[in-house]
Amino acid sequence: MREIGIEQLDDIARGAGILGTGGGGDPYIGKLLAREAIRRHGPVTVADIDEVPADATVVPVSAMGAPTVLLEKLPSGAEELTALRALEAVLGRPATHIVPIEIGGVNSMIPIAAAAESGLPLVDGDAMGRAFPEAQMVLPTLIGVSTTPMALADDKGNTLVVDAVSNLWSERIARSACVEMGCQVSCADTVLRGDQLRDGLVPATLTLAEDLGRAVRLARHEHADPVAAARDLLGGTRLLTGKVIDVERRTSGGFARGQASLEGLGADAGRTLRLNFQNEHLLATRDGEVVATTPDLICVLDTETGEPVTTENMRYGLRVTVIAAPCDPRWTTPAGLALAGPRYFGYDCDHVPLTLA
Amino acid sequence: MREIGIEQLDDIARGAGILGTGGGGDPYIGKLLAREAIRRHGPVTVADIDEVPADATVVPVSAMGAPTVLLEKLPSGAEELTALRALEAVLGRPATHIVPIEIGGVNSMIPIAAAAESGLPLVDGDAMGRAFPEAQMVLPTLIGVSTTPMALADDKGNTLVVDAVSNLWSERIARSACVEMGCQVSCADTVLRGDQLRDGLVPATLTLAEDLGRAVRLARHEHADPVAAARDLLGGTRLLTGKVIDVERRTSGGFARGQASLEGLGADAGRTLRLNFQNEHLLATRDGEVVATTPDLICVLDTETGEPVTTENMRYGLRVTVIAAPCDPRWTTPAGLALAGPRYFGYDCDHVPLTLA
Repeated sequence: MREIGIEQLDDIARGAGILGTGGGGDPYIGKLLAREAIRRHGPVTVADIDEVPADATVVPVSAMGAPTVLLEKLPSGAEELTALRALEAVLGRPATHIVPIEIGGVNSMIPIAAAAESGLPLVDGDAMGRAFPEAQMVLPTLIGVSTTPMALADDKGNTLVVDAVSNLWSERIARSACVEMGCQVSCADTVLRGDQLRDGLVPATLTLAEDLGRAVRLARHEHADPVAAARDLLGGTRLLTGKVIDVERRTSGGFARGQASLEGLGADAGRTLRLNFQNEHLLATRDGEVVATTPDLICVLDTETGEPVTTENMRYGLRVTVIAAPCDPRWTTPAGLALAGPRYFGYDCDHVPLTLA
Repeated sequence: MREIGIEQLDDIARGAGILGTGGGGDPYIGKLLAREAIRRHGPVTVADIDEVPADATVVPVSAMGAPTVLLEKLPSGAEELTALRALEAVLGRPATHIVPIEIGGVNSMIPIAAAAESGLPLVDGDAMGRAFPEAQMVLPTLIGVSTTPMALADDKGNTLVVDAVSNLWSERIARSACVEMGCQVSCADTVLRGDQLRDGLVPATLTLAEDLGRAVRLARHEHADPVAAARDLLGGTRLLTGKVIDVERRTSGGFARGQASLEGLGADAGRTLRLNFQNEHLLATRDGEVVATTPDLICVLDTETGEPVTTENMRYGLRVTVIAAPCDPRWTTPAGLALAGPRYFGYDCDHVPLTLA
């Protein structure tokens, strides 16, 4: 057991921004929420997966919606507890632990806020090991755990509880309601028992996010290469260093979708890289060749500072470096690829194993 | 207390088809469901409003969606009980009575089926005294009763419980989920206590539907004018006898919307009538003048047989007579008109009191 206080939030948010592969929303917004919650309720106790009792009721709490909307419509901090209480009411038992559904952007921070507000311990791990855009794209789906009952709460006070026949249906129904509720809702769903955490979570990703955020910060302070620090810690590879020359973006079906074009600078002069995204970066095509795909991590970092660049913050002229890093190995199984591989998203290509330097 | 058996269904369905003002779905489909339920479970006990105990839990059960979809996607008869059970679970108490939310088309029949299947008595009345397209357009809204918790169930086994801050929000959220669930779901919502029935329901509308259906049938058998029989029983007026010369129809936002143009025949030769509908007929314009509007009833009947013609069954060449009849007086109060008057639906006109012959 350890604690997360206000002083850890910057590093966790930075690291989770990188692990969020462009999605999960601007971590700055989530950080404001988590900081305010810790300021009011005190630090959050963090439990390793091994420390959670087998019969624990572990509840992921998150935000659903388009990060482009989140930028303009900040959650108040009350909705996630409303969603949690609505879920507990249908479960008929209280949550014993909070856990992030994904270790990306705002969704790394909202569980910290929810843990502080509810006084429950936070589990060090998440259900993706990165961020994915759709609610069924979680390891629990691979082990037959339902994402429902799924409780949604909006900023107006409306709540919704979905009970679906499949995790794909719960995503479809919740997403359409989410769009109607203003494209930004808080969720509590995908309840795990303590003895399901080993198979249902990627362990220690809060710690990884903090390590990553710290490594980038320290490299910057020491005038070393912050992007290289992140790449090394993730065991990844550099795809391109360059600048953003075009971004197409639209908010459709409750997602921020689009693509960004980069041209290389320095050693990469003359090269191009295209990124396709649906909240998260899903496909990287360099000089016409697909070099990285979902479910591997495709991360865009500010070349100078190593700060993560979310898809909704991509804009012309930004100097960025794109790195790719291997996902949790459960995602590259046939079942994992069927759930979150490039073909699910409509790309006409198979998963390309990363060429690691 | 009396009973509804299979032998009453034809008259009730016909009468409810007329009271449904073109909406509520083809009553034939609902009749199949109700007949099958009564065949398997026996006749349904009907209670007058006065016979319901003050502390009763009275639950409207209905279908939500576009009648154009209902035509092709028949409910199985199981969904309405699933919705009822999901609602009871969040209420924490069982329903004691079933009641129609509207006395229109399929939604007059589904409560009969639900009453037979659940073994609960059916209350003789409904929350509109006609059919309206949106869930907040019920008398309970006018007396401050929430339509939520609202339970929805689809044909695939998905359920949803909405808890909203207003009846308009519950309609918006449920409608968007309904569209995603296939534009056709079963609902249980707008729970009334026994002592709220007098203000929350139009009384005896099941009996009215049966009387209306019988009057049309008997007039036809006696070679009298079945349309005149319906008009007289409703205290209404004839707007036009003619034929349908054009129908524009689209299924959008979970509704069947459009307009129909009629030209007069016989004594009405040379006259025209335009009907605008959103599931239900909402506006009748004769020779360029608005002569009847929602919330009054605008009913289209086959001129020859007196059978109701639903909006999705309107087609070129049909010989029909359009009648208009006054709605329950609570709908023409300022609050009633704000909820279901022509301006709510976007028509640039006020409610036109009917000119009764």
